[in-house]
Amino acid sequence: MKFCANCGAQVVQRVPPGDTLTRWVCEHCGEIHYQNPKLVIGTVPEHEGRVLLCRRAIEPRYGYWTLPAGFMENDETTAQAALRETLEEAGAAVDLQEPFTLISVPRVNQVHLFYRARLRSLEFKPGEETLELALLDEAAIPWQDIAFRTVGYTLKRWFEDRSRGNYQFHAADLQ
Amino acid sequence: MKFCANCGAQVVQRVPPGDTLTRWVCEHCGEIHYQNPKLVIGTVPEHEGRVLLCRRAIEPRYGYWTLPAGFMENDETTAQAALRETLEEAGAAVDLQEPFTLISVPRVNQVHLFYRARLRSLEFKPGEETLELALLDEAAIPWQDIAFRTVGYTLKRWFEDRSRGNYQFHAADLQ
Repeated sequence: MKFCANCGAQVVQRVPPGDTLTRWVCEHCGEIHYQNPKLVIGTVPEHEGRVLLCRRAIEPRYGYWTLPAGFMENDETTAQAALRETLEEAGAAVDLQEPFTLISVPRVNQVHLFYRARLRSLEFKPGEETLELALLDEAAIPWQDIAFRTVGYTLKRWFEDRSRGNYQFHAADLQ
Repeated sequence: MKFCANCGAQVVQRVPPGDTLTRWVCEHCGEIHYQNPKLVIGTVPEHEGRVLLCRRAIEPRYGYWTLPAGFMENDETTAQAALRETLEEAGAAVDLQEPFTLISVPRVNQVHLFYRARLRSLEFKPGEETLELALLDEAAIPWQDIAFRTVGYTLKRWFEDRSRGNYQFHAADLQ
């Protein structure tokens, strides 16, 4: 950040009165430009014990496998974001179930939230950010080629919980 | 948003190539300024069935009662945000337990997350944003003077779950 989004003057870094953290502050109009973590929201789309994975057609991690997920937008709920991303990236309609994993990734200022979900049909097709899709059981998951640690964590918990017959909510931090 | 934070030129609203939503875009340097929901994180600090509430010393909702909570900052985890806000607003050290409620509030582009927590002691004191503190059982909760619906929702679920002897994770949307 170099310029004030409100008035166009240059911004400086300082601790505003009554605050404890350094912010981007405009000394011309007084605006304080807070920066906060973003939510990345997705699903674990299931059909009879198999999970739908997407091979990424974009950077970062082009060619690696992921769950359908992306940045939550303004004017939507977490559930709507999960449904939208699943439709956009995998062309898949799902019945959303419970939130399943909530994972902080402070290094990139993100919090990842994955819902469990059931595929409504076996009709799906790759979106623009996806090279190909695969519906995989645990033995077929390409563990060495998973795009993000939050996705690997979520898949591991999902198959563990499934084998126990009891899905729980899992919160974790990735340092 | 009126000016580009990267180059200071005026921004315009349009749908970038490959996108589906209108964004603030800089036609001078090409920067796309995404805007996303913020996480508000807090705790339900408990001591022997009573919950610590804070009466707000700031707007919005000056004088109304709330749970300790605030915006998650960059470079922290959700758990760290919960501990920090509880210390800042209530001067209270807690042992953090599980995430308890996750509530979307799309009207204000926020997602609220509350953890269960146990007060480590009965030493607490109001922070700068708090007029006074009170440790209250269910009958004493000022239900008509709760600052935010997410706080009312969280307190209702907490006392319900407590009376059943079984705390669960609750996800909800406030339209």
